[in-house]
Parts: sequence; structure tokens; C-alpha cells
Amino acid sequence: MSRSKADWIVGVDIGGTNIKVGVVPFDGGTPLAVRVERTEVQRGAKFVVDRVVKMIQDAIEEVAKAEGAGTDAFAGIGIGSPGPLDRRTGTVISTPNLGWRNFPLRDLIRNAVGLPATLDNDANAATYGEWWQGAGRDVDTVVGVTLGTGIGGGIVLNGVLHHGASDAAGELGHMTIDSTGRKCNCGNYGCLEAYASGPAIAARAIEGLEAEVPSLLPELAGDPNSITAETVYDAVVQGDPYATEVLHDTAKFLGVGLANIINIINPDLLVISGGVTKAGDHLFEPLRAEIRKRAFRVAEQACKIVPSSLNGTAGIIGAVACFKKETYGSV
Amino acid sequence: MSRSKADWIVGVDIGGTNIKVGVVPFDGGTPLAVRVERTEVQRGAKFVVDRVVKMIQDAIEEVAKAEGAGTDAFAGIGIGSPGPLDRRTGTVISTPNLGWRNFPLRDLIRNAVGLPATLDNDANAATYGEWWQGAGRDVDTVVGVTLGTGIGGGIVLNGVLHHGASDAAGELGHMTIDSTGRKCNCGNYGCLEAYASGPAIAARAIEGLEAEVPSLLPELAGDPNSITAETVYDAVVQGDPYATEVLHDTAKFLGVGLANIINIINPDLLVISGGVTKAGDHLFEPLRAEIRKRAFRVAEQACKIVPSSLNGTAGIIGAVACFKKETYGSV
Repeated sequence: MSRSKADWIVGVDIGGTNIKVGVVPFDGGTPLAVRVERTEVQRGAKFVVDRVVKMIQDAIEEVAKAEGAGTDAFAGIGIGSPGPLDRRTGTVISTPNLGWRNFPLRDLIRNAVGLPATLDNDANAATYGEWWQGAGRDVDTVVGVTLGTGIGGGIVLNGVLHHGASDAAGELGHMTIDSTGRKCNCGNYGCLEAYASGPAIAARAIEGLEAEVPSLLPELAGDPNSITAETVYDAVVQGDPYATEVLHDTAKFLGVGLANIINIINPDLLVISGGVTKAGDHLFEPLRAEIRKRAFRVAEQACKIVPSSLNGTAGIIGAVACFKKETYGSV
Repeated sequence: MSRSKADWIVGVDIGGTNIKVGVVPFDGGTPLAVRVERTEVQRGAKFVVDRVVKMIQDAIEEVAKAEGAGTDAFAGIGIGSPGPLDRRTGTVISTPNLGWRNFPLRDLIRNAVGLPATLDNDANAATYGEWWQGAGRDVDTVVGVTLGTGIGGGIVLNGVLHHGASDAAGELGHMTIDSTGRKCNCGNYGCLEAYASGPAIAARAIEGLEAEVPSLLPELAGDPNSITAETVYDAVVQGDPYATEVLHDTAKFLGVGLANIINIINPDLLVISGGVTKAGDHLFEPLRAEIRKRAFRVAEQACKIVPSSLNGTAGIIGAVACFKKETYGSV
């Protein structure tokens, strides 16, 4: 497909909590007309698709007006969604957080908007975005880790997003770090996600409070059962020793998983995104210490570990990069 | 470098226990003049290098005579060695099993033999060998796992050996599977190698016998402390229930590690090599069951898990593949 007169590509980042849409200049740059809305997945798949389509149409209209651009200035839509999924058919095979099974997400959006579209895993897209425009723009090999309701990952090797044999590569959240450890939502025991996802951080914090340790957490949350990962970060910033311990444990668990990644992939860069990065050095210092302890020295020394530099838009930018790569063969 | 008249390349596979050398036809095929000798690393680095050089010279002489070939028929030498190592300088940075540090292995061999040489990690080479000529010859993405005194790994992605940022990729043996588990030789806790290497299998077998369970193992080994992984496989074949349990546990630990690999890399094929594969279905059945339990379904279904098909010569063949790739740009 030739570029023709296209100046813009729409990026869509569908998550379990929020949908983000933005319009990215063809050659990269800050997304315009960015909008964020709740996914409200409990209202059903049709509702979510209609909402995504409306957000895309509104964003296109906004950019078209502001830039005086015609319809032919928009090349298409890159979509990132939780997986596993099939890129070729544009189908989401299954996604626990959204409840979809064999759902033809790409074509529903493409047909409703009337523009070509591509589908890729959301964490893959975010990592590709970091490589194209963000923290990884000067290196070849980047592993991205997204910490949220779940833990996702993406792997860019020598500038190419690694999809694997069945588009399932980079599922870092379900790496076992303790084979007889905490039960994970996936049914297994000891997955990284069972320790370091947002809900897991909250669950560990609540469990520890049963021993009646002094902490700001119950007060900040209103009641102990309303504690979230955000409450933990807030309490850490306010100097709460118990919350700091919970975060420190999180950093250690995460360090075990990331040391495994460093030993296996030996990347130039690990980019970490998600709410937990707000804790800054409270997270990164014990995290780096655990990695130094567990990873091979030559691999650990070659790898920088940084937070995302794209301010929550890595998924949008990366979905656009995926669209470019699939449509034109390069980014 | 052009191929000129070269018909043969020498492959060298240096391990903690044995050195293997063979001569491989330029376009692939069964290695000729294969020889295996003990490494005897305790006799020092010079002794080992002299032994390797003598083995190479003897192998070249044997093939030259048998094929009526002149010196210019031999293009060079591919060397596989435990790492970490630096391919560019041909230096072994450190290797716990051999005790070498910053050791210019490649150039010592090159200068003594008088042929160009390349150096790569032994498990990388073995995996590349499987991809070129062995179990992986029909697929794009192969992960190899070598189970011996240590556990090594190699990753071939879309036909390219993945070295990573500092030639350290594929170190699967020091993946943490139990962050507070068994102590590993590397100083950490819960590495895959601490459960499923040969010495770890023997150590777990000996520990369990302290509870005085009935087993053929002490009799087969002479005394309990002489039990090795080989003794365990022999006892399994003779139907010993305790040894079968030890092997079954090994398969489960290995399954945890390989499920992690499948979730991260999503390969077409996992090739397992080393003594433990002699246990056949006693190993592979519980191994596949654990992987099915822990890996993403779409990733697990895409991945065949097989023993090496190169009968102990994957390291030789793969070292030759590495030489070809580095010298001519392709295999």
C-alpha cells in the first residue's frame, strides 16, 4: 500500500479500565486530539466498540478541523488490545479482563470507521511505541513491562517487534517466579502478576494489616478493604514504613522477574510503565538492587532500566507504529 | 571473506567435562573425524588449549587424507565455549565450570592452528546447530536447552541466533523459578539449574533417601553419596518408584522454566539435549503436562517439545554454523 496523501494515523489503546485514542503524525510526534474514556466492559462488547468508534471519529474530526485536512489525510487505525489475539484475522482470541472470546475487533472498527485497521497486543504496542518515539528511541533491543490491572510485556529485537509463533510472545506477567507461591487469576501459582500487579499489591497490603501493624493505609483508604495500589504509593510518599515495606517487596518480586528477562533476552533497555512507577526511586532502587543480585553481570551492566517517557501515550503511539509496520513494511 | 576453495569447517565444542571436535562439510552434513576427549580443566588452561589444538590438527589430517584434500580445503574453526564471552574479541569473560577469566581462547587456537576462528557460547552453538541441521531445520524460531553439569540455552529467532546486547542472551539456567528456593552455585536462590542440572538431580535424590525410602539407587551407585543423575535414569528404567518420583519432580521444575520461556518467546520448537533426555517419556510426559498447566494455551499449542536429533554433535555442527554466519554473513 502506498502512503498517498496520508498525513495522520489514529492510535487506539484499549485497556481493562480505560480506552485511549489519539492521532499521530505520520512520521511520529506527540499525539493530537487525545481522549481517554472508561472502558466500562460490563456494558458489553458492542458498547465498547461503539465507544471506540465514536472516540476515533471525534478525534479525526478534531484534527481535520484544526489542520484543515480532508478525509484522505488519515491513513488508518492502529489498535492495541489485551490478548491473546490473532493479528492476521484481527481477532481477539480471549481476554480475561474484557471477557471477549474470538471477537473480530479489528474489522468491527474498520467497517464502522471506514479506514484500514490493524490489531496488535496492547503491551506489544506500548513497547514498540517506546522504541519508536520514547525511552528506547536510541537503542535496538527493548523489553517493555506494563504494570496495571495485569502485567503485560513486549519485546523489540533489533528494531523488530517480536510476535513469536502464535502472536503470544512477551507474556511476562505469567512468568512463574515462585512455583508453589501465591495463586494467580490465571489459575496457576506464583506468577509475577500475582505479586506485582495493582490488585496484587493491594491484596498483599491488606493481608499484612491483619497483623495490626501501624500504618496510614486504612485512614487514607477510608477502610482497609478499600486499599488500592494507589493508596500504597500515596502512603509511601508520605513516609509510611509499612507501605514502604509493601512496595519494597513488590520491587523485589519484580526484580526477580526482570532479572529472568535480562538473563534470557539481554536487552539494551527495560522500560517500565504503569501506576507503580509514580513511586520513583522508592521502587527503582530496590528493584535495581534485586536485579544486580540475580542477573548475570555482563547482562545487567548492559541494560538500562527506566520508566516510560511517553506520559501514558505509549500505547497510542505504538499502535500507530504497528499499523505503519504492517501496512508499509517499516515504521 | 570469500569462500575460495574451502570445502570443510572445523567445529569445536568445549564443555566442563568433554571436548568434542569434528569436521563439517561446508554445506552441512554429518561431522567427520569426530573425537571426544576429557577436558581435565584442573590441569590448567594451557593444557586444555593444547589438547583442543591437537584434536583439531588430528581431525584435519584425518579428513585431508581420507578425502585427498589440501590445506586450503579447510576454511576455519568455529568454537563453542561456556560463557559469558565477548564474540568480538574472542575472549571468555568468565566461566565458573572452567575457571577461566578474560581468556583469549579464540586467538590462542587460531594462532596455534593457523586458520581463522570464531567464538560463541556453547549452548548458543548447539541451538544454532539444531536449527541448521537438526530438530529445528524446518522452523524459524527455536529455543534450545542443554541439561548437563549446568543448564544452558540458546535462542534462534526467525533463523537468526539472538545474542543480545552483550552476548549474554539465552542464560536459561539461572532463571529464578522459586525466589526463596534451593541455593544455586551462582550464589542465588531458586535458579532452574539448582533443580534440574545433573548435580542438582543427584543432590535431590540423595537428600530424599535420608528418609530411608526403599530404592534401588544406593545399590546401583555402590553407596548413596555416589549417586549421580545417570544412576537416577538407570533406576527409572528399572522401574524404581523413588527414582521415578525424583525424575518426575525434575520434569515439573523444568516444566516451570520452559513454560516461562514459551510465554516469553513463543517459539515454534523447544529442543532439549543432555543426559536426562535418555529417560524418554518418563521425562517428556510429566514435562509436557506441567507446561500445559502453566503456559498460555495459544503459545503452548504452537510449540513442539523434542529431544535433540543430532546425537551429541549439535555443538560441533552449531559452532560451524556460527563460523559461517560470522565469516560469510549467512549459514
